[in-house]
Amino acid sequence: MARHVAGAEIERLIQLLGKLPGLGPRSARRAALHLIKKKESLLAPLTAAFRAALDTVGVCSICGNVDTVEPCTVCRDATRDGSVLVVVEDVSDLWALERAGAIDARYHVLGGVLSPLDGVGPGDLAIATLVERCRQGGIREVVLAVNATVEGQTTAHYVTDQLAQLAEEGHAITVTRLAHGVPVGGELDYLDDGTLAQAMRARTKF
Amino acid sequence: MARHVAGAEIERLIQLLGKLPGLGPRSARRAALHLIKKKESLLAPLTAAFRAALDTVGVCSICGNVDTVEPCTVCRDATRDGSVLVVVEDVSDLWALERAGAIDARYHVLGGVLSPLDGVGPGDLAIATLVERCRQGGIREVVLAVNATVEGQTTAHYVTDQLAQLAEEGHAITVTRLAHGVPVGGELDYLDDGTLAQAMRARTKF
Repeated sequence: MARHVAGAEIERLIQLLGKLPGLGPRSARRAALHLIKKKESLLAPLTAAFRAALDTVGVCSICGNVDTVEPCTVCRDATRDGSVLVVVEDVSDLWALERAGAIDARYHVLGGVLSPLDGVGPGDLAIATLVERCRQGGIREVVLAVNATVEGQTTAHYVTDQLAQLAEEGHAITVTRLAHGVPVGGELDYLDDGTLAQAMRARTKF
Repeated sequence: MARHVAGAEIERLIQLLGKLPGLGPRSARRAALHLIKKKESLLAPLTAAFRAALDTVGVCSICGNVDTVEPCTVCRDATRDGSVLVVVEDVSDLWALERAGAIDARYHVLGGVLSPLDGVGPGDLAIATLVERCRQGGIREVVLAVNATVEGQTTAHYVTDQLAQLAEEGHAITVTRLAHGVPVGGELDYLDDGTLAQAMRARTKF
Protein backbone atom coordinates (compact mmCIF):
# COMPACT_ATOMS: atom_id res chain seq x y z
CA MET A 1 0.00 0.00 0.00
CA ALA A 2 1.35 3.41 -0.95
CA ARG A 3 2.03 5.82 1.87
CA HIS A 4 2.20 9.54 2.20
CA VAL A 5 5.60 10.60 0.79
CA ALA A 6 5.19 14.23 -0.10
CA GLY A 7 3.22 17.19 1.21
CA ALA A 8 -0.39 17.86 0.25
CA GLU A 9 0.78 20.84 -1.84
CA ILE A 10 2.75 18.52 -4.13
CA GLU A 11 -0.12 16.04 -4.42
CA ARG A 12 -2.46 18.88 -5.35
CA LEU A 13 0.03 20.21 -7.91
CA ILE A 14 0.24 16.77 -9.57
CA GLN A 15 -3.54 16.38 -9.51
CA LEU A 16 -4.12 19.77 -11.18
CA LEU A 17 -1.37 19.29 -13.78
CA GLY A 18 -3.05 15.99 -14.70
CA LYS A 19 -6.10 17.97 -15.83
CA LEU A 20 -4.14 19.56 -18.68
CA PRO A 21 -4.81 18.00 -22.07
CA GLY A 22 -1.92 15.74 -23.04
CA LEU A 23 -0.79 15.02 -19.47
CA GLY A 24 -1.83 11.77 -17.77
CA PRO A 25 -1.20 10.93 -14.10
CA ARG A 26 2.35 9.69 -14.79
CA SER A 27 3.42 12.63 -16.95
CA ALA A 28 1.77 15.06 -14.51
CA ARG A 29 4.02 13.65 -11.79
CA ARG A 30 7.04 14.01 -14.06
CA ALA A 31 6.04 17.60 -14.91
CA ALA A 32 5.53 18.45 -11.22
CA LEU A 33 8.96 17.11 -10.30
CA HIS A 34 10.51 18.97 -13.23
CA LEU A 35 8.86 22.21 -12.06
CA ILE A 36 10.02 21.72 -8.48
CA LYS A 37 13.58 21.01 -9.60
CA LYS A 38 13.60 24.07 -11.84
CA LYS A 39 12.03 26.41 -9.33
CA GLU A 40 13.84 29.55 -10.40
CA SER A 41 14.17 28.92 -14.13
CA LEU A 42 10.71 27.48 -14.85
CA LEU A 43 8.27 27.36 -11.93
CA ALA A 44 8.66 31.03 -11.02
CA PRO A 45 8.29 32.40 -14.60
CA LEU A 46 5.40 30.02 -15.30
CA THR A 47 3.64 31.16 -12.13
CA ALA A 48 4.08 34.75 -13.28
CA ALA A 49 2.78 33.85 -16.75
CA PHE A 50 -0.28 32.16 -15.19
CA ARG A 51 -0.85 35.22 -13.01
CA ALA A 52 -0.60 37.48 -16.08
CA ALA A 53 -3.00 35.27 -18.03
CA LEU A 54 -5.45 35.30 -15.11
CA ASP A 55 -5.30 39.06 -14.87
CA THR A 56 -5.19 40.10 -18.51
CA VAL A 57 -6.58 37.44 -20.83
CA GLY A 58 -10.23 37.58 -21.78
CA VAL A 59 -12.62 36.57 -24.54
CA CYS A 60 -13.15 39.15 -27.29
CA SER A 61 -16.74 40.40 -27.18
CA ILE A 62 -16.84 40.73 -30.97
CA CYS A 63 -15.31 37.54 -32.38
CA GLY A 64 -14.74 35.20 -29.42
CA ASN A 65 -10.94 35.09 -29.79
CA VAL A 66 -8.92 35.10 -26.54
CA ASP A 67 -6.53 37.98 -26.08
CA THR A 68 -5.13 40.45 -23.59
CA VAL A 69 -6.90 43.39 -25.23
CA GLU A 70 -10.61 44.03 -25.78
CA PRO A 71 -11.54 43.99 -28.66
CA CYS A 72 -8.84 41.47 -29.65
CA THR A 73 -5.78 42.17 -31.81
CA VAL A 74 -7.46 40.67 -34.87
CA CYS A 75 -10.66 42.70 -34.48
CA ARG A 76 -8.80 46.00 -33.98
CA ASP A 77 -6.43 45.39 -36.93
CA ALA A 78 -7.65 47.99 -39.46
CA THR A 79 -5.55 46.55 -42.30
CA ARG A 80 -7.68 43.39 -42.47
CA ASP A 81 -10.47 42.90 -44.96
CA GLY A 82 -13.55 43.50 -42.83
CA SER A 83 -15.91 42.31 -45.54
CA VAL A 84 -14.87 38.67 -45.15
CA LEU A 85 -15.81 36.79 -41.99
CA VAL A 86 -14.23 33.40 -41.30
CA VAL A 87 -16.39 31.21 -39.03
CA VAL A 88 -14.41 28.70 -36.93
CA GLU A 89 -15.40 26.21 -34.25
CA ASP A 90 -12.69 27.05 -31.77
CA VAL A 91 -10.02 29.63 -30.97
CA SER A 92 -7.39 27.00 -31.83
CA ASP A 93 -8.75 26.92 -35.40
CA LEU A 94 -8.44 30.72 -35.61
CA TRP A 95 -4.83 30.45 -34.43
CA ALA A 96 -4.14 27.66 -36.95
CA LEU A 97 -5.48 29.73 -39.87
CA GLU A 98 -3.47 32.74 -38.70
CA ARG A 99 -0.29 30.66 -38.36
CA ALA A 100 -0.83 29.48 -41.93
CA GLY A 101 -1.41 33.09 -43.02
CA ALA A 102 -4.40 31.61 -44.84
CA ILE A 103 -6.52 34.78 -45.13
CA ASP A 104 -6.38 38.42 -44.18
CA ALA A 105 -9.91 38.68 -42.81
CA ARG A 106 -11.86 38.81 -39.57
CA TYR A 107 -13.13 35.84 -37.59
CA HIS A 108 -16.10 34.56 -35.65
CA VAL A 109 -15.58 31.78 -33.11
CA LEU A 110 -18.67 29.59 -32.64
CA GLY A 111 -17.31 27.96 -29.50
CA GLY A 112 -18.12 24.41 -30.58
CA VAL A 113 -20.33 22.43 -32.92
CA LEU A 114 -23.95 21.33 -32.82
CA SER A 115 -24.06 17.95 -31.12
CA PRO A 116 -27.50 16.82 -29.89
CA LEU A 117 -25.98 13.73 -28.25
CA ASP A 118 -23.76 15.96 -26.08
CA GLY A 119 -26.63 18.37 -25.47
CA VAL A 120 -25.10 21.18 -27.54
CA GLY A 121 -27.83 23.13 -29.34
CA PRO A 122 -27.76 26.36 -31.41
CA GLY A 123 -28.25 28.42 -28.23
CA ASP A 124 -24.94 27.15 -26.85
CA LEU A 125 -22.98 28.44 -29.85
CA ALA A 126 -22.28 32.01 -30.97
CA ILE A 127 -24.64 31.70 -33.94
CA ALA A 128 -27.09 34.48 -33.02
CA THR A 129 -24.19 36.92 -32.60
CA LEU A 130 -22.84 35.85 -36.00
CA VAL A 131 -26.18 36.63 -37.65
CA GLU A 132 -26.25 39.93 -35.79
CA ARG A 133 -22.75 40.84 -37.00
CA CYS A 134 -23.80 40.10 -40.58
CA ARG A 135 -27.05 42.06 -40.18
CA GLN A 136 -25.06 45.18 -39.24
CA GLY A 137 -23.79 45.21 -42.83
CA GLY A 138 -20.38 45.52 -44.49
CA ILE A 139 -19.90 41.77 -44.80
CA ARG A 140 -19.94 40.29 -48.28
CA GLU A 141 -18.59 36.78 -47.63
CA VAL A 142 -18.83 34.29 -44.77
CA VAL A 143 -16.28 31.45 -44.96
CA LEU A 144 -17.39 28.38 -43.00
CA ALA A 145 -14.01 27.06 -41.85
CA VAL A 146 -15.44 24.31 -39.64
CA ASN A 147 -13.94 20.85 -39.29
CA ALA A 148 -14.81 18.28 -41.96
CA THR A 149 -16.57 16.12 -39.38
CA VAL A 150 -20.26 15.16 -39.30
CA GLU A 151 -20.90 17.66 -36.47
CA GLY A 152 -18.91 20.36 -38.25
CA GLN A 153 -20.86 19.91 -41.45
CA THR A 154 -24.20 19.81 -39.60
CA THR A 155 -23.25 23.08 -37.94
CA ALA A 156 -22.24 24.56 -41.31
CA HIS A 157 -25.65 23.68 -42.75
CA TYR A 158 -27.46 25.18 -39.76
CA VAL A 159 -25.42 28.40 -39.95
CA THR A 160 -26.09 28.64 -43.70
CA ASP A 161 -29.84 28.34 -43.03
CA GLN A 162 -29.66 31.11 -40.46
CA LEU A 163 -27.72 33.38 -42.82
CA ALA A 164 -30.25 32.70 -45.58
CA GLN A 165 -32.77 34.82 -43.61
CA LEU A 166 -30.46 37.80 -44.13
CA ALA A 167 -30.79 37.47 -47.90
CA GLU A 168 -34.55 38.00 -47.47
CA GLU A 169 -33.71 41.16 -45.51
CA GLY A 170 -31.67 42.41 -48.47
CA HIS A 171 -28.12 41.51 -47.38
CA ALA A 172 -26.07 40.00 -50.24
CA ILE A 173 -23.79 37.61 -48.38
CA THR A 174 -21.97 34.75 -50.11
CA VAL A 175 -21.42 31.70 -47.90
CA THR A 176 -18.36 29.62 -48.82
CA ARG A 177 -16.58 26.63 -47.31
CA LEU A 178 -12.98 25.39 -47.30
CA ALA A 179 -11.97 23.25 -50.29
CA HIS A 180 -11.68 19.50 -49.88
CA GLY A 181 -8.73 17.77 -51.51
CA VAL A 182 -5.34 16.17 -51.21
CA PRO A 183 -3.31 17.65 -48.31
CA VAL A 184 -0.10 19.33 -49.49
CA GLY A 185 2.65 16.72 -49.20
CA GLY A 186 0.07 13.93 -48.87
CA GLU A 187 0.28 10.59 -50.63
CA LEU A 188 -2.77 9.40 -52.56
CA ASP A 189 -2.30 5.83 -51.38
CA TYR A 190 -2.89 6.85 -47.76
CA LEU A 191 -5.94 9.05 -48.40
CA ASP A 192 -9.48 7.97 -47.70
CA ASP A 193 -11.89 7.37 -50.60
CA GLY A 194 -14.08 10.38 -49.78
CA THR A 195 -11.18 12.82 -49.97
CA LEU A 196 -9.87 11.29 -53.19
CA ALA A 197 -13.32 11.44 -54.83
CA GLN A 198 -13.76 15.09 -53.76
CA ALA A 199 -10.27 16.00 -55.01
CA MET A 200 -10.99 14.42 -58.38
CA ARG A 201 -14.38 16.13 -58.68
CA ALA A 202 -12.86 19.54 -57.85
CA ARG A 203 -9.79 19.07 -60.09
CA THR A 204 -8.31 22.29 -61.48
CA LYS A 205 -6.38 23.19 -64.63
CA PHE A 206 -2.65 22.49 -64.33
CA MET B 1 3.34 34.45 -43.14
CA ALA B 2 1.89 34.16 -39.67
CA ARG B 3 0.90 37.37 -37.96
CA HIS B 4 0.49 38.47 -34.40
CA VAL B 5 -2.87 37.08 -33.22
CA ALA B 6 -2.66 37.08 -29.46
CA GLY B 7 -0.98 39.18 -26.79
CA ALA B 8 2.62 38.64 -25.70
CA GLU B 9 1.35 37.20 -22.40
CA ILE B 10 -0.28 34.30 -24.24
CA GLU B 11 2.77 33.68 -26.42
CA ARG B 12 4.95 33.59 -23.31
CA LEU B 13 2.52 31.22 -21.58
CA ILE B 14 2.68 28.81 -24.54
CA GLN B 15 6.47 29.07 -24.71
CA LEU B 16 6.89 28.26 -21.00
CA LEU B 17 4.35 25.42 -21.03
CA GLY B 18 6.33 23.90 -23.92
CA LYS B 19 9.28 23.48 -21.55
CA LEU B 20 7.39 20.92 -19.46
CA PRO B 21 8.38 17.33 -20.17
CA GLY B 22 5.76 15.66 -22.33
CA LEU B 23 4.44 18.87 -23.89
CA GLY B 24 5.61 19.87 -27.39
CA PRO B 25 4.81 23.20 -29.09
CA ARG B 26 1.43 21.97 -30.34
CA SER B 27 0.28 20.45 -27.07
CA ALA B 28 1.58 23.49 -25.18
CA ARG B 29 -0.73 25.65 -27.29
CA ARG B 30 -3.60 23.29 -26.60
CA ALA B 31 -2.82 23.34 -22.87
CA ALA B 32 -2.61 27.16 -22.83
CA LEU B 33 -5.99 27.47 -24.54
CA HIS B 34 -7.47 24.92 -22.16
CA LEU B 35 -6.16 26.91 -19.19
CA ILE B 36 -7.51 30.19 -20.55
CA LYS B 37 -10.92 28.66 -21.18
CA LYS B 38 -11.04 27.16 -17.70
CA LYS B 39 -9.79 30.26 -15.91
CA GLU B 40 -11.78 29.78 -12.73
CA SER B 41 -11.82 26.00 -12.51
CA LEU B 42 -8.22 25.24 -13.54
CA LEU B 43 -5.97 28.26 -14.17
CA ALA B 44 -6.70 29.94 -10.84
CA PRO B 45 -6.20 26.81 -8.67
CA LEU B 46 -3.11 25.81 -10.66
CA THR B 47 -1.62 29.28 -10.17
CA ALA B 48 -2.27 28.93 -6.43
CA ALA B 49 -0.69 25.45 -6.44
CA PHE B 50 2.38 26.83 -8.24
CA ARG B 51 2.58 29.67 -5.74
CA ALA B 52 2.34 27.17 -2.85
CA ALA B 53 5.02 24.97 -4.41
CA LEU B 54 7.29 28.00 -4.89
CA ASP B 55 6.81 29.06 -1.30
CA THR B 56 6.83 25.76 0.54
CA VAL B 57 8.55 23.00 -1.42
CA GLY B 58 12.23 22.36 -0.84
CA VAL B 59 14.82 19.62 -1.03
CA CYS B 60 15.31 17.54 2.15
CA SER B 61 18.78 18.19 3.54
CA ILE B 62 19.06 14.58 4.74
CA CYS B 63 17.86 12.39 1.86
CA GLY B 64 17.30 14.70 -1.13
CA ASN B 65 13.55 14.06 -1.40
CA VAL B 66 11.37 17.07 -2.24
CA ASP B 67 8.73 18.00 0.30
CA THR B 68 7.02 20.87 2.05
CA VAL B 69 8.63 20.05 5.38
CA GLU B 70 12.31 19.91 6.38
CA PRO B 71 13.39 17.16 7.03
CA CYS B 72 10.95 15.46 4.66
CA THR B 73 7.96 13.30 5.62
CA VAL B 74 9.93 10.11 4.95
CA CYS B 75 12.92 11.18 7.06
CA ARG B 76 10.78 12.26 10.01
CA ASP B 77 8.65 9.09 9.95
CA ALA B 78 9.80 7.31 13.12
CA THR B 79 7.97 4.08 12.24
CA ARG B 80 10.33 3.34 9.35
CA ASP B 81 13.29 1.01 9.62
CA GLY B 82 16.20 3.43 9.89
CA SER B 83 18.78 0.69 9.51
CA VAL B 84 18.01 0.18 5.82
CA LEU B 85 18.92 2.93 3.34
CA VAL B 86 17.57 2.73 -0.23
CA VAL B 87 19.77 4.59 -2.72
CA VAL B 88 17.88 5.93 -5.76
CA GLU B 89 18.92 8.06 -8.74
CA ASP B 90 16.03 10.46 -8.65
CA VAL B 91 13.12 11.62 -6.50
CA SER B 92 10.76 10.02 -9.02
CA ASP B 93 12.31 6.62 -8.20
CA LEU B 94 11.73 7.26 -4.50
CA TRP B 95 8.09 8.08 -5.25
CA ALA B 96 7.76 4.96 -7.42
CA LEU B 97 9.09 2.68 -4.66
CA GLU B 98 6.79 4.36 -2.14
CA ARG B 99 3.78 4.00 -4.44
CA ALA B 100 4.61 0.31 -4.73
CA GLY B 101 4.97 0.11 -0.94
CA ALA B 102 8.16 -1.82 -1.76
CA ILE B 103 10.01 -1.24 1.50
CA ASP B 104 9.53 0.51 4.82
CA ALA B 105 12.96 2.13 4.98
CA ARG B 106 14.71 5.45 4.50
CA TYR B 107 16.09 6.78 1.24
CA HIS B 108 19.04 8.59 -0.25
CA VAL B 109 18.60 10.42 -3.56
CA LEU B 110 21.82 10.59 -5.61
CA GLY B 111 20.43 13.22 -7.98
CA GLY B 112 21.56 11.43 -11.13
CA VAL B 113 24.06 8.86 -12.36
CA LEU B 114 27.73 8.97 -13.22
CA SER B 115 28.02 9.92 -16.87
CA PRO B 116 31.47 11.10 -18.03
CA LEU B 117 30.09 11.93 -21.48
CA ASP B 118 27.61 14.36 -19.95
CA GLY B 119 30.24 15.67 -17.57
CA VAL B 120 28.60 14.17 -14.47
CA GLY B 121 31.26 13.05 -12.00
CA PRO B 122 31.06 11.75 -8.40
CA GLY B 123 31.20 15.31 -7.10
CA ASP B 124 27.93 16.14 -8.86
CA LEU B 125 26.04 13.38 -7.05
CA ALA B 126 25.13 13.03 -3.37
CA ILE B 127 27.66 10.22 -2.86
CA ALA B 128 29.84 11.90 -0.22
CA THR B 129 26.74 12.67 1.87
CA LEU B 130 25.67 9.01 1.52
CA VAL B 131 29.02 7.80 2.87
CA GLU B 132 28.73 10.37 5.67
CA ARG B 133 25.24 9.13 6.61
CA CYS B 134 26.54 5.57 6.74
CA ARG B 135 29.58 6.61 8.78
CA GLN B 136 27.32 8.09 11.46
CA GLY B 137 26.24 4.50 12.22
CA GLY B 138 22.94 2.73 12.70
CA ILE B 139 22.74 1.57 9.08
CA ARG B 140 23.11 -2.14 8.42
CA GLU B 141 21.99 -2.38 4.77
CA VAL B 142 22.26 -0.14 1.73
CA VAL B 143 19.97 -1.13 -1.15
CA LEU B 144 21.20 0.16 -4.51
CA ALA B 145 17.88 0.76 -6.26
CA VAL B 146 19.40 2.40 -9.34
CA ASN B 147 18.16 1.86 -12.88
CA ALA B 148 19.35 -1.24 -14.73
CA THR B 149 21.16 0.92 -17.29
CA VAL B 150 24.90 1.05 -17.99
CA GLU B 151 25.19 4.39 -16.18
CA GLY B 152 23.09 3.11 -13.28
CA GLN B 153 25.24 0.03 -12.87
CA THR B 154 28.47 2.05 -13.15
CA THR B 155 27.18 4.33 -10.42
CA ALA B 156 26.23 1.31 -8.29
CA HIS B 157 29.79 -0.05 -8.59
CA TYR B 158 31.30 3.31 -7.70
CA VAL B 159 29.02 3.70 -4.65
CA THR B 160 29.88 0.15 -3.53
CA ASP B 161 33.59 1.00 -3.72
CA GLN B 162 33.05 4.10 -1.63
CA LEU B 163 31.09 2.18 0.98
CA ALA B 164 33.82 -0.49 1.12
CA GLN B 165 36.02 2.09 2.89
CA LEU B 166 33.53 2.07 5.75
CA ALA B 167 34.10 -1.64 6.31
CA GLU B 168 37.75 -0.85 6.98
CA GLU B 169 36.56 1.71 9.53
CA GLY B 170 34.61 -1.04 11.29
CA HIS B 171 31.06 -0.41 9.94
CA ALA B 172 29.32 -3.68 8.99
CA ILE B 173 27.12 -2.57 6.10
CA THR B 174 25.64 -5.03 3.59
CA VAL B 175 25.23 -3.57 0.08
CA THR B 176 22.39 -5.14 -1.92
CA ARG B 177 20.78 -4.46 -5.28
CA LEU B 178 17.29 -4.98 -6.72
CA ALA B 179 16.60 -8.43 -8.18
CA HIS B 180 16.56 -8.87 -11.94
CA GLY B 181 13.83 -11.05 -13.42
CA VAL B 182 10.56 -11.35 -15.27
CA PRO B 183 8.29 -8.33 -14.62
CA VAL B 184 5.02 -9.32 -12.90
CA GLY B 185 2.45 -9.80 -15.66
CA GLY B 186 5.19 -9.89 -18.28
CA GLU B 187 5.33 -12.37 -21.16
CA LEU B 188 8.55 -14.31 -21.70
CA ASP B 189 8.30 -13.96 -25.47
CA TYR B 190 8.62 -10.19 -25.24
CA LEU B 191 11.54 -10.12 -22.78
CA ASP B 192 15.13 -9.44 -23.78
CA ASP B 193 17.71 -12.23 -23.56
CA GLY B 194 19.63 -10.62 -20.68
CA THR B 195 16.57 -10.46 -18.44
CA LEU B 196 15.55 -14.03 -19.30
CA ALA B 197 19.04 -15.35 -18.58
CA GLN B 198 19.14 -13.48 -15.23
CA ALA B 199 15.66 -14.72 -14.31
CA MET B 200 16.68 -18.31 -15.06
CA ARG B 201 19.93 -18.02 -13.08
CA ALA B 202 18.11 -16.56 -10.06
CA ARG B 203 15.22 -19.04 -10.21
CA THR B 204 13.56 -19.79 -6.87
CA LYS B 205 11.74 -22.79 -5.40
CA PHE B 206 8.05 -22.86 -6.35
